[in-house]
Amino acid sequence: GLMAAGSVGAYAATQNTASNQGSAEGFTADRSTALAQQIKSSKPRNVILIIGDGMDDSMITAARNYELGAGGRFAGLDSLPFTGSMTTYGLKVGTGPDYPIAYVSDSAPTASGWSTGKKTVDGRISQGPSTAADVPGEDYETVLEKFKAGGKLVGNITTSELTDATPAAAASHINARACQGPQDLAACTSARKSAGGKGSIAEQLVDNEVDVLMGGGLNRYSQATDAGPTVLDYAQREHGYRVLDDKTDLAGVTSLKKGPVLGLFAPGNMTPMYQPLVATAPPGTGGATTTCQEADRGSQPDLSTMTAKAIALLDNRKGFFLQAESAMIDKQEHGSDICGAIGDLRELDEAVQVVLAFQKKNPDTLIIVTGDHAHSTQIVGGVTDGKQVATLQTADGDPMTVAYSTSDVGSDHTGAQIRVAASGPQGANVTGVIDQTDLFRTMLGRSPSGTPGPRD
Amino acid sequence: GLMAAGSVGAYAATQNTASNQGSAEGFTADRSTALAQQIKSSKPRNVILIIGDGMDDSMITAARNYELGAGGRFAGLDSLPFTGSMTTYGLKVGTGPDYPIAYVSDSAPTASGWSTGKKTVDGRISQGPSTAADVPGEDYETVLEKFKAGGKLVGNITTSELTDATPAAAASHINARACQGPQDLAACTSARKSAGGKGSIAEQLVDNEVDVLMGGGLNRYSQATDAGPTVLDYAQREHGYRVLDDKTDLAGVTSLKKGPVLGLFAPGNMTPMYQPLVATAPPGTGGATTTCQEADRGSQPDLSTMTAKAIALLDNRKGFFLQAESAMIDKQEHGSDICGAIGDLRELDEAVQVVLAFQKKNPDTLIIVTGDHAHSTQIVGGVTDGKQVATLQTADGDPMTVAYSTSDVGSDHTGAQIRVAASGPQGANVTGVIDQTDLFRTMLGRSPSGTPGPRD
Ligand SMILES: [Mg+2]
Ligand SMILES: [Mg+2]
Ligand SMILES: [Zn+2]
Ligand SMILES: [Zn+2]
Ligand SMILES: [Zn+2]
Ligand SMILES: [Zn+2]
Repeated sequence: GLMAAGSVGAYAATQNTASNQGSAEGFTADRSTALAQQIKSSKPRNVILIIGDGMDDSMITAARNYELGAGGRFAGLDSLPFTGSMTTYGLKVGTGPDYPIAYVSDSAPTASGWSTGKKTVDGRISQGPSTAADVPGEDYETVLEKFKAGGKLVGNITTSELTDATPAAAASHINARACQGPQDLAACTSARKSAGGKGSIAEQLVDNEVDVLMGGGLNRYSQATDAGPTVLDYAQREHGYRVLDDKTDLAGVTSLKKGPVLGLFAPGNMTPMYQPLVATAPPGTGGATTTCQEADRGSQPDLSTMTAKAIALLDNRKGFFLQAESAMIDKQEHGSDICGAIGDLRELDEAVQVVLAFQKKNPDTLIIVTGDHAHSTQIVGGVTDGKQVATLQTADGDPMTVAYSTSDVGSDHTGAQIRVAASGPQGANVTGVIDQTDLFRTMLGRSPSGTPGPRD
Repeated sequence: GLMAAGSVGAYAATQNTASNQGSAEGFTADRSTALAQQIKSSKPRNVILIIGDGMDDSMITAARNYELGAGGRFAGLDSLPFTGSMTTYGLKVGTGPDYPIAYVSDSAPTASGWSTGKKTVDGRISQGPSTAADVPGEDYETVLEKFKAGGKLVGNITTSELTDATPAAAASHINARACQGPQDLAACTSARKSAGGKGSIAEQLVDNEVDVLMGGGLNRYSQATDAGPTVLDYAQREHGYRVLDDKTDLAGVTSLKKGPVLGLFAPGNMTPMYQPLVATAPPGTGGATTTCQEADRGSQPDLSTMTAKAIALLDNRKGFFLQAESAMIDKQEHGSDICGAIGDLRELDEAVQVVLAFQKKNPDTLIIVTGDHAHSTQIVGGVTDGKQVATLQTADGDPMTVAYSTSDVGSDHTGAQIRVAASGPQGANVTGVIDQTDLFRTMLGRSPSGTPGPRD
């Protein structure tokens, strides 16, 4: 990432002795004044939301243990001053208005939750619940759309396909997350443009003229629209998008004056930082000296590079909204791949470092960092403690075993509340216990509550 | 509990519709000023630490879903203004000074961590690490002992045996947690009083003259000391303890003027609030209409009753320290018993409500509420998603399935960071990411950092 050169030290192991083990002699100063000075009730000018798909407390701890040692701290992710717990449940289809609760959610209703402030059903993209998966619900306006309507610039970037559920929910509305390209609309027939609908997710993202769109998913944009040309052609011709293919293209774009940008850096999902290490039945894979190996990502940019560029492009006097997703934490957890998930969580931390550096110069920026739902990864006491296990040597030099046990092969989401963290104006609204739908109002800026401290 | 009558409403289900689902139309006011007004940098006069053994984010969410519905909020546990994430790792025996890391810890090093500010090895009670489990480490002074030395009153209560690891670490020092009574010292021969040692955990707790001791574990106190009489006789004769047998005895004691109190309300662990519902191999136990059933607890007081009494006895001008543990969350999770664990988490919430009510009248009280380590419980998407599963009907009226997968039978700790929450002076020190050893300095009162806001 852009910060990698400067942040190498952040990923060095901490020393572990009896006296300074972790933070045993840890922080000594009372944090009261420091926290009070961070509280600002003003409405933020810029909002940056960084999502780690599937990033729960267990996955954060596993990645920290591996990258920094148990007593280490992520320079970005672990440094945000406001922290809380966030519930992520969703609904099940029904006749309403009292829909059954889904205690474990997928990435569509969770992203729809913070994007629209309302709960919905699995697979649903910023539309309300309904009687069945293939029955569209009511479209709910998103934070991104409200920022755009307010004359601010907006960005939406990810390491998965750009049309995957999390980025989709920021700026499109459709009954099923599978309906990513114009040829993928079997479950969303009324959404077809030829049927008078808003089109697939790929089409809606560009019809919304999101100023910066970046991620994988070129294959969705290569699909033919109902009108004939590909979505890519349509985006360029109708909306003036400039298409970026690789990190060289990305480096070359320096302003939005010549039109919005559409970065499509991989046919499908982008390549994670690390090669996979897939957990297997006990005694599992890996061992006391196993470490994660960097993957060859060819000409793909990484998340922190995309994030830095997105901010550089979006930064303007009126303000901006950016959603940036480290998507492959979840995808690799689904594959019981501990190294893949760890690497993408580290990438998220690097992206957080980038946005914190921007915030230093632009203190009217609200940063929120969280996941969308809990996942399957557990840190366990031994190599027989789960259905699939893997062991790695951490930065401490010691073995850590993780388990995936929701299936015999592969793995799935779980329902625990997850960590939410924030920095900047109105960041205090993530403290305590919140629901992910509460992020909606916070990102829009609640009515300032007054003058909380001497700094305001 | 004492608060049960008044708090029944807190355990009613919330209404779930598309529009008000959870907190979808949730909190609207900016919390900045409210949070700022809670920040106080002064040293607390009283400190109350409430521990849920094994209480991680997954278990909190499962209990909330069951008791209140997914959009509900615990009136105590979920209402504390300062929240953060806490790491819980420990050490493994070795030659030192760089001990190997244990990424999953038991209740002894974790409780020793906050009690002494230092890391230690599994099974170790407020002593440092060493070359082997049966080799004693250096005794580390505890928060409770420092409060006592400072002329304050001190209390230590639990729903497990009083000599179990968590209460033991508050006020005793021994190389192995199993050494609970004078007849249990096989692994701690040098601790024998006849060998010049400090004695078993049971003996040390009373030798420390902790003003209020309450829990189960009568069988440990009925053991003969090396000198002949039982620990119970010794406690009464040498230290003037008044022994309480049941909730009637508890109600009858109204001050410490006639000596310290030793409540021993069960031979072993106390009875959890709910009868067990033990998870089994898929498709598991319970179902869409299964609810938890109250257990017959005979004449045993519950945790909130013990907590209220402890505070009433300890409250004095100079201040006090109280550690109160809901211990059976962990024990029932070890038994893959979802109802047992849920009930004891609810009990913890009732105890938190009691101490918050006390704090309202005594704002110089710091309250910290947290767990000691993560555990095995996962909320999963279906009845095949784990080694052992159980399904319950929640307060929403919908089914929730939980899984235990670290073993085929029973269950064990995991290594995720856990939630920590606080209210009162210096409570801001739990925000962000902390280690449990950081609680040590916070409970002792860090040097105040100045004047954070208009209220100070
Ligand atoms: Mg995603
Ligand atoms: Mg305990
Ligand atoms: Zn997701
Ligand atoms: Zn997923
Ligand atoms: Zn424990
Ligand atoms: Zn345990």
